[in-house]
Amino acid sequence: MNAATATILLSCPDTPGLVAKLANFIHSNGGNIIHADHHTDLSAGLFLSRIEWQLEGFNLPREIVAPAFAAIADPLNAYWELHFSDRVPRLSLWVTKQDHCLLDLLWRTRSGELNAEVPLIVSNHRDLEPIAAQYGIDFHHFPITADTKPEREAEELALLDRYDIDLAVLAKYMQVLSSDFVEKFPKILNIHHSFLPAFAGAKPYHRAYARGVKIVGATSHYVTADLDEGPIVEQDVVRVSHRDEVADLIRKGKDLERIVLARAVRAHLEHRVLVYGKRTVVFG
Amino acid sequence: MNAATATILLSCPDTPGLVAKLANFIHSNGGNIIHADHHTDLSAGLFLSRIEWQLEGFNLPREIVAPAFAAIADPLNAYWELHFSDRVPRLSLWVTKQDHCLLDLLWRTRSGELNAEVPLIVSNHRDLEPIAAQYGIDFHHFPITADTKPEREAEELALLDRYDIDLAVLAKYMQVLSSDFVEKFPKILNIHHSFLPAFAGAKPYHRAYARGVKIVGATSHYVTADLDEGPIVEQDVVRVSHRDEVADLIRKGKDLERIVLARAVRAHLEHRVLVYGKRTVVFG
Amino acid sequence: MNAATATILLSCPDTPGLVAKLANFIHSNGGNIIHADHHTDLSAGLFLSRIEWQLEGFNLPREIVAPAFAAIADPLNAYWELHFSDRVPRLSLWVTKQDHCLLDLLWRTRSGELNAEVPLIVSNHRDLEPIAAQYGIDFHHFPITADTKPEREAEELALLDRYDIDLAVLAKYMQVLSSDFVEKFPKILNIHHSFLPAFAGAKPYHRAYARGVKIVGATSHYVTADLDEGPIVEQDVVRVSHRDEVADLIRKGKDLERIVLARAVRAHLEHRVLVYGKRTVVFG
Amino acid sequence: MNAATATILLSCPDTPGLVAKLANFIHSNGGNIIHADHHTDLSAGLFLSRIEWQLEGFNLPREIVAPAFAAIADPLNAYWELHFSDRVPRLSLWVTKQDHCLLDLLWRTRSGELNAEVPLIVSNHRDLEPIAAQYGIDFHHFPITADTKPEREAEELALLDRYDIDLAVLAKYMQVLSSDFVEKFPKILNIHHSFLPAFAGAKPYHRAYARGVKIVGATSHYVTADLDEGPIVEQDVVRVSHRDEVADLIRKGKDLERIVLARAVRAHLEHRVLVYGKRTVVFG
Repeated sequence: MNAATATILLSCPDTPGLVAKLANFIHSNGGNIIHADHHTDLSAGLFLSRIEWQLEGFNLPREIVAPAFAAIADPLNAYWELHFSDRVPRLSLWVTKQDHCLLDLLWRTRSGELNAEVPLIVSNHRDLEPIAAQYGIDFHHFPITADTKPEREAEELALLDRYDIDLAVLAKYMQVLSSDFVEKFPKILNIHHSFLPAFAGAKPYHRAYARGVKIVGATSHYVTADLDEGPIVEQDVVRVSHRDEVADLIRKGKDLERIVLARAVRAHLEHRVLVYGKRTVVFG
Repeated sequence: MNAATATILLSCPDTPGLVAKLANFIHSNGGNIIHADHHTDLSAGLFLSRIEWQLEGFNLPREIVAPAFAAIADPLNAYWELHFSDRVPRLSLWVTKQDHCLLDLLWRTRSGELNAEVPLIVSNHRDLEPIAAQYGIDFHHFPITADTKPEREAEELALLDRYDIDLAVLAKYMQVLSSDFVEKFPKILNIHHSFLPAFAGAKPYHRAYARGVKIVGATSHYVTADLDEGPIVEQDVVRVSHRDEVADLIRKGKDLERIVLARAVRAHLEHRVLVYGKRTVVFG
Repeated sequence: MNAATATILLSCPDTPGLVAKLANFIHSNGGNIIHADHHTDLSAGLFLSRIEWQLEGFNLPREIVAPAFAAIADPLNAYWELHFSDRVPRLSLWVTKQDHCLLDLLWRTRSGELNAEVPLIVSNHRDLEPIAAQYGIDFHHFPITADTKPEREAEELALLDRYDIDLAVLAKYMQVLSSDFVEKFPKILNIHHSFLPAFAGAKPYHRAYARGVKIVGATSHYVTADLDEGPIVEQDVVRVSHRDEVADLIRKGKDLERIVLARAVRAHLEHRVLVYGKRTVVFG
Repeated sequence: MNAATATILLSCPDTPGLVAKLANFIHSNGGNIIHADHHTDLSAGLFLSRIEWQLEGFNLPREIVAPAFAAIADPLNAYWELHFSDRVPRLSLWVTKQDHCLLDLLWRTRSGELNAEVPLIVSNHRDLEPIAAQYGIDFHHFPITADTKPEREAEELALLDRYDIDLAVLAKYMQVLSSDFVEKFPKILNIHHSFLPAFAGAKPYHRAYARGVKIVGATSHYVTADLDEGPIVEQDVVRVSHRDEVADLIRKGKDLERIVLARAVRAHLEHRVLVYGKRTVVFG
């Protein structure tokens, strides 16, 4: 087993001495940095950083780390997060009828490849309920109509709270979440079945076929109020040819969707992603 | 040296017996097929084919091949082209100020990698004239303004005719050709510096940066009256990260543009591309 | 549903008129070719072909197709196979302890993405027996020692015969099959967790790490008496960096292994693969 | 123009407080870090770091930076390098008869894409002398025989010294350098036309064809006394098919070779590469 570590993700206006400030905070309290990566976006004037250190030998009690670090970060006008590696994140998976991303994420969490628990599956249909049962995961069914959407979303938000969910993963969830929902629970990853911004919106494979592209892609992004406009975490592509009909694009796309979404979820779970504006830093 | 071959590209409404008809035409006249690839687009009801055979032993004189084949193809309502491999295609390269695609294509033709002659370079600026001089290629400069465009394009069309040009390659030519021009000379390949249909239009790398994509691409397509909407011949992509600024996207994109355009030109020169609607078949 | 088709895979010494012979056989019997792809390996002097035609309207009874075609193929000294698309191929999956390729293939067959039945899982350990049970598939456990190997392999061959297996897929089966076994049942696909011929043999990820490569791969090939030397059907790669430890290479490799093996199985099931010597043609 | 920066590359046995030590050295002297990336290889017990900071405002005179930093680095038992961005590195390009890598690197340096000067081209043949002349670069011809090799290499080493060369780039130089040479001048990058360790040694494309691989690659590595065993800096691959003959593999490989070598040279010139054992860290 790996020993427990703490990770800080931080972004703030660039100013001299930031790396030294962060490193000194950890070192002076007895911590040993095992990964540190800093990036300066010169055009945005922004410093972005990820530091991970071993908790063994670190002489601040856990509950003191955040307030102690705040004393450094607040004067910097910084956005920051603190995570402990032995706190296992809790995921909620959201699906409609397609099972490939759901099965893939369940396999990866069960096998330990992804360090997360999945206590909750949400769906607007009942088709995938048997998979939830098979894995012993609670399944909540919310049929959505235009009329009932506000009420359903309120219930969904209550569920996320009740299950203490850290991240909602839209694993082929074919419903648009309202901007109100996203504002109240902003930690949501989606998989879109195209190489965004190409073919945003509905039926991307059909439109890719009609356009005659030679490559199709998939994109995982955080969900924002603007559909398909959220900050991109991961993308990948696969080559297609004139022999591939729409059904082949869909089939090839499924493999992409599984892998792209899994990579994005993994980066998030390892606290490697910082968002600023429409852009993300994904630390290596 | 490879022995001379003939190639037929053909598309027509699908009907039984087409492969047999084509094969029999060649075999009964003593030809030996060395490559044959047929594709049926079932949704379009279209048969598309490329057949290449050795001319040695073929007992039709060259000038008779086309009329003899027309007797078969016309009743099929077919579009078809006949090419002889020892007729070296003649290219005209169109550029503005960037030299990377121009130099790349010149290197590939001079080294024999591309089977083509380049007797003519056209530009709306004089910046790359020294490269033309160095390679001993005629350079024609056509400064374009909105007022003079029709006149200039008429002169350009006359040049293409005078130089007996088979294919015009827009190798980073930063001018839009009029629909009238394209109608009169439709054999034009362009390189667009994005993964179409994403970032069609101007400044694709700046917009890709602003959108925060994790992959950028390049697209080579035939030019049609609709800008950036022509049938795609080849696309490829390269991964980028948060560390890449716009200048890095441009730099990485240049390598893509060179390779994607060269592949498309090669496929065209080897008579591997059939266009139907907005789609292409690129035979392997 | 797609209408039933017949597919012929054929290789023979190259000679003029082969495409015409094949096309005429089908056309003269009322068949409509929907895919035809021919390749001539000029250095080997070999003609290789795949033709698929619709059985509706074809006026030879099924049991007569093979003998009728043999009358054409035998004088050509051809190797050939005839397949009907409504005969669902039967797979046997062979595993040891790792489940990722097994689960992936089961998901693809159950969802209909792969047109095959899986009546039999074979393993040298009992770890994955619960998965077989869950899918309702017979599981046969053959612990292997050097002493018992000949006896066990005889039993395994009897099983393949009893279950009427068309293709055995070694889906991370960590045992070498004897050359005697391979001779008696040559239709075997394997997945090797490296970019062959790099890192043939044991522990490829550990050796890739030690060598400091920047890309790792996976290879699916037919099994021959020479370990890791069989004809390659499919390969793919993924980029790694100095941040990836052996465990990361293994993790990234698993995604590759799943996809590369699935693509190879699919190509085989669609009768797209012809082997000659150590090479394969995989028709598009 | 970018303002001048200093970059330190450092590796040393891992111990707590290293990031703080480096950051404090720069910050306490008035420097502003713009890029910092640290990696710990836990199995090797090694800390590896790259820090780049703006020289404007840094209050140590340039000639004092190295001795001042040595006072910190020496007790750490560190290997380290210090580079100033306004010192343009000097390259020597080594070629035999193929021009594609040479032309590519010359184009990239002339266009400013690579920040380097090329005062010297070395070759064992005279074929590419005209290119050197055209670019106004000194060309030195050293025909090599087994007998004359030691003498020629002594002359070559003298040239490298005389031209004050920082990096020798073997841009398709088809001669093996002696271990004695490599020891005396260890800063040498090579391009090998295969995906190492596959097809190390001669005629990799021919052997790749014979093996029937579906992907070919290229590898750029530092040269060591063991041929094709040096630490790898960059690799990439391209897909091939049964239609590709050896000549096609060579053609596709040339595009790879150009790009892989250019990326490796760029990473070296930007001081992003640290070697340890047979492995490299290439900082992003």
